Amino acid sequence: MIDIQNSQDTREIPLQKVGVTDLSYPVQVLDKTEGTQCTCADVNLFVNLPHNYKGTHMSRFIEIFHRHRRNLGMRQFLSMLEEIRASLDAERAFGSMEFPFFMKKNAPVSGAESIMSYRCTYEGEVSGGGQNFTLKIEVPVTTLCPCSKAISSYGAHNQRGIVTVKLRNSSLFWIEDVIEAVEGSASSGLYSILKRPDEKFVTEHAYDNPRFVEDVVREVYLALRNFSKSEKPFAWFQVECKNFESIHNHNAYACAEFSGS
Amino acid sequence: MIDIQNSQDTREIPLQKVGVTDLSYPVQVLDKTEGTQCTCADVNLFVNLPHNYKGTHMSRFIEIFHRHRRNLGMRQFLSMLEEIRASLDAERAFGSMEFPFFMKKNAPVSGAESIMSYRCTYEGEVSGGGQNFTLKIEVPVTTLCPCSKAISSYGAHNQRGIVTVKLRNSSLFWIEDVIEAVEGSASSGLYSILKRPDEKFVTEHAYDNPRFVEDVVREVYLALRNFSKSEKPFAWFQVECKNFESIHNHNAYACAEFSGS
Amino acid sequence: MIDIQNSQDTREIPLQKVGVTDLSYPVQVLDKTEGTQCTCADVNLFVNLPHNYKGTHMSRFIEIFHRHRRNLGMRQFLSMLEEIRASLDAERAFGSMEFPFFMKKNAPVSGAESIMSYRCTYEGEVSGGGQNFTLKIEVPVTTLCPCSKAISSYGAHNQRGIVTVKLRNSSLFWIEDVIEAVEGSASSGLYSILKRPDEKFVTEHAYDNPRFVEDVVREVYLALRNFSKSEKPFAWFQVECKNFESIHNHNAYACAEFSGS
Amino acid sequence: MIDIQNSQDTREIPLQKVGVTDLSYPVQVLDKTEGTQCTCADVNLFVNLPHNYKGTHMSRFIEIFHRHRRNLGMRQFLSMLEEIRASLDAERAFGSMEFPFFMKKNAPVSGAESIMSYRCTYEGEVSGGGQNFTLKIEVPVTTLCPCSKAISSYGAHNQRGIVTVKLRNSSLFWIEDVIEAVEGSASSGLYSILKRPDEKFVTEHAYDNPRFVEDVVREVYLALRNFSKSEKPFAWFQVECKNFESIHNHNAYACAEFSGS
Repeated sequence: MIDIQNSQDTREIPLQKVGVTDLSYPVQVLDKTEGTQCTCADVNLFVNLPHNYKGTHMSRFIEIFHRHRRNLGMRQFLSMLEEIRASLDAERAFGSMEFPFFMKKNAPVSGAESIMSYRCTYEGEVSGGGQNFTLKIEVPVTTLCPCSKAISSYGAHNQRGIVTVKLRNSSLFWIEDVIEAVEGSASSGLYSILKRPDEKFVTEHAYDNPRFVEDVVREVYLALRNFSKSEKPFAWFQVECKNFESIHNHNAYACAEFSGS
Repeated sequence: MIDIQNSQDTREIPLQKVGVTDLSYPVQVLDKTEGTQCTCADVNLFVNLPHNYKGTHMSRFIEIFHRHRRNLGMRQFLSMLEEIRASLDAERAFGSMEFPFFMKKNAPVSGAESIMSYRCTYEGEVSGGGQNFTLKIEVPVTTLCPCSKAISSYGAHNQRGIVTVKLRNSSLFWIEDVIEAVEGSASSGLYSILKRPDEKFVTEHAYDNPRFVEDVVREVYLALRNFSKSEKPFAWFQVECKNFESIHNHNAYACAEFSGS
Repeated sequence: MIDIQNSQDTREIPLQKVGVTDLSYPVQVLDKTEGTQCTCADVNLFVNLPHNYKGTHMSRFIEIFHRHRRNLGMRQFLSMLEEIRASLDAERAFGSMEFPFFMKKNAPVSGAESIMSYRCTYEGEVSGGGQNFTLKIEVPVTTLCPCSKAISSYGAHNQRGIVTVKLRNSSLFWIEDVIEAVEGSASSGLYSILKRPDEKFVTEHAYDNPRFVEDVVREVYLALRNFSKSEKPFAWFQVECKNFESIHNHNAYACAEFSGS
Repeated sequence: MIDIQNSQDTREIPLQKVGVTDLSYPVQVLDKTEGTQCTCADVNLFVNLPHNYKGTHMSRFIEIFHRHRRNLGMRQFLSMLEEIRASLDAERAFGSMEFPFFMKKNAPVSGAESIMSYRCTYEGEVSGGGQNFTLKIEVPVTTLCPCSKAISSYGAHNQRGIVTVKLRNSSLFWIEDVIEAVEGSASSGLYSILKRPDEKFVTEHAYDNPRFVEDVVREVYLALRNFSKSEKPFAWFQVECKNFESIHNHNAYACAEFSGS
């Protein structure tokens, strides 16, 4: 049967990225407490395509990902990309995998147990020049406005915000530890279950720790620069915060980037 | 050229709805202050299809909508549906049109002018039995938690919420008046621009008017039951509120329905 | 500590629905081949609230759902709702749970194995009057246009479509069997992996089985009316199909409903 | 009233981006045929914030955008950013504005008139070092698979795809001309209205012009490199195509970048 993809292309245009996107797949990732956890991923997988090839063989991406689906820690994700690169004889293979990461959490006073969900994304690239891996985590938090608190006789507007951190490191670290560092930097962390004594606690804690979107970004930045729970400091990171302002119908945003001491 | 859609179908299954969805189109709707306003709609248009027809003629929906696009007040939307019904020789024609409705608003103390956007949806149906029209409006508001206020020594968690009202009436009313009724029933309305004296005002106003999601629904219900800005009372309405809780990563929700006094 | 939610409300407005929405949680559901499967759910849980209560206790919804998360077949979902109803002393408890349902599938010629993802939603309600359960499944398919095939000298436009079925039954049935019935009613089913001989097969199979959006709905309707893989026939079902037309930027849609023979 | 935002920050962390996001606003942009057109924008506006300032003044972004909303051609968008930069005394101001761009189109045989919608995004940046502007346009097209056509006895799978181009140029060009260049590079362009003779035409035209996702990207690349409708060639562009494969539930993707001859 003719292999059109494999035929010669004469337009002399190399393609930086060719592949499959928006693949929905069950996967297993590492979990600090339980060893592994099951979750559901949205997957994008690519290679580069030299100018002289007409097309790539898209079914191979899925075949290789399918075999690795039950063992997709950060390092194993890069091994999977290496296998794609070899199979398609490409200079570079890269891709991303976004999934909800689940973590048990106890309410701050009552200790009531529930599960929180955090969107995580692996972004990896492998080539002859080496490997790159970026972890992205979205952590929802409470932010309470310092200006509103300072100028008002009582109360202060507050809201849910999403802190998005992207991290690169050569040594191992746990997603759970990054989440804790982020939650400790906001006006308050969020919980799936809060009983009344917990609600009193988080309300007062947030009022005692007002943070602009700018403050949250800077506090998370400091926490990640001083992160003690990986062998080496992070080589690079970026911190964003987006506040779903309770007094506006648009959002407030800030972003800082760290690229080495 | 053969007309397959028009051929006989022998499966004896009538179709309640056949048509086009997710059409993106520029439209003009009525505006209380300016006469008309330009906006961008997502449009769904349907007819019923008797069991003996194989298919409908989908291009006619678009041709008719295209001709009416510059004059789509609530009544004109129903006229457009009547034209679809006649053109396709159907018992019933129905459809919906969702669009951002824009309204100028002044900040509560400084008077600073800006524009707020509210998602509106027309839902209409025409048949031999008459016409039905439902207006849906989504109004973002601030809600401040009465429990959090009562049990905490200071502060109270608050957040953006979305109030969704659906209304049916035989007499005319303005979208703008419904929005005002909803905003007046929450802990506070939202604004695109707030200067510092405005921010102080809305912070304190929200703290003075704590509302559970349940309270917002009941207050909007009362405001719509007593709505004085249409000739007749609303024949039917439904009120929902969804709060993007600042202390949780899930939402709180309440809903009430009114179907005549 | 004061319990504001429990206090008396004098506005005399009962609320049909009060609860939590958009909770992201890891769950386990039944799997015909493997016994159970892990997946990720978006959960909404509600009770009704009589007019004389100010609010409900939202943390209890999550506590009860948390305890049931590892055993959420269709019947267990209703048991979980019964427990919410009892705990909150409500007349009615109801809710929904949406999740990707994963199913292994072999390519039609090569037999290559991969996993397909189908969005499923449980919708349940329990009250003194009994229990209701509706299963919703979204099955992506290929549809090839009979009109385009008939009027063109060669080729025929085709596209991905989504068939959405909602089903009610008193006897047990498997999600997997419904998916098979739907896929067999379209121009072709979809696959995550297709090798070249498979691609030839599905291309020709689709061309041999042209289906309007109206045809797909009627064929699925017939397949479900004659469904032989549950003890009893379905008591009620609805079939929708939405085609992401390859020649338009809007979609084509049809819907039929069955409510007993 | 105290100005907390203006107070001194000692954490020594500059913020690359601070501002507002997801603002929904009515705007007017340029239209080759009509002079201007009304549309609805999602707007993000930012400045950088030096390490020694605690916060920015977010209301000013909206005030300035509000004044420019009726005159937002590409150049005027940059002028608006310059005004933000001056008002907030920032080194850099930047932002984006996404909107549906509407264009009248006639069916290829019948000439039937309808409107197509294309998502466009302005991305601008102004600083002491100069101005940058990138236009992004999403053009939906038909793609017909060359492999499926070659290996099958009849038929060929085809589907809707989205071509996304990003362009930078120092001289003026029309959005409409870029859309035409993209549509001419696919298996077929899309239409809101097609009568039967039009449907025959586009079906056969697509079958005569099979294109992999890789081919579409390369053909658009060639068309933009040879683009004759602006005074100067494009300084930089990127072309992506994503196909909503009719035989898979995931998408196929390709991307190429041009950065000068």
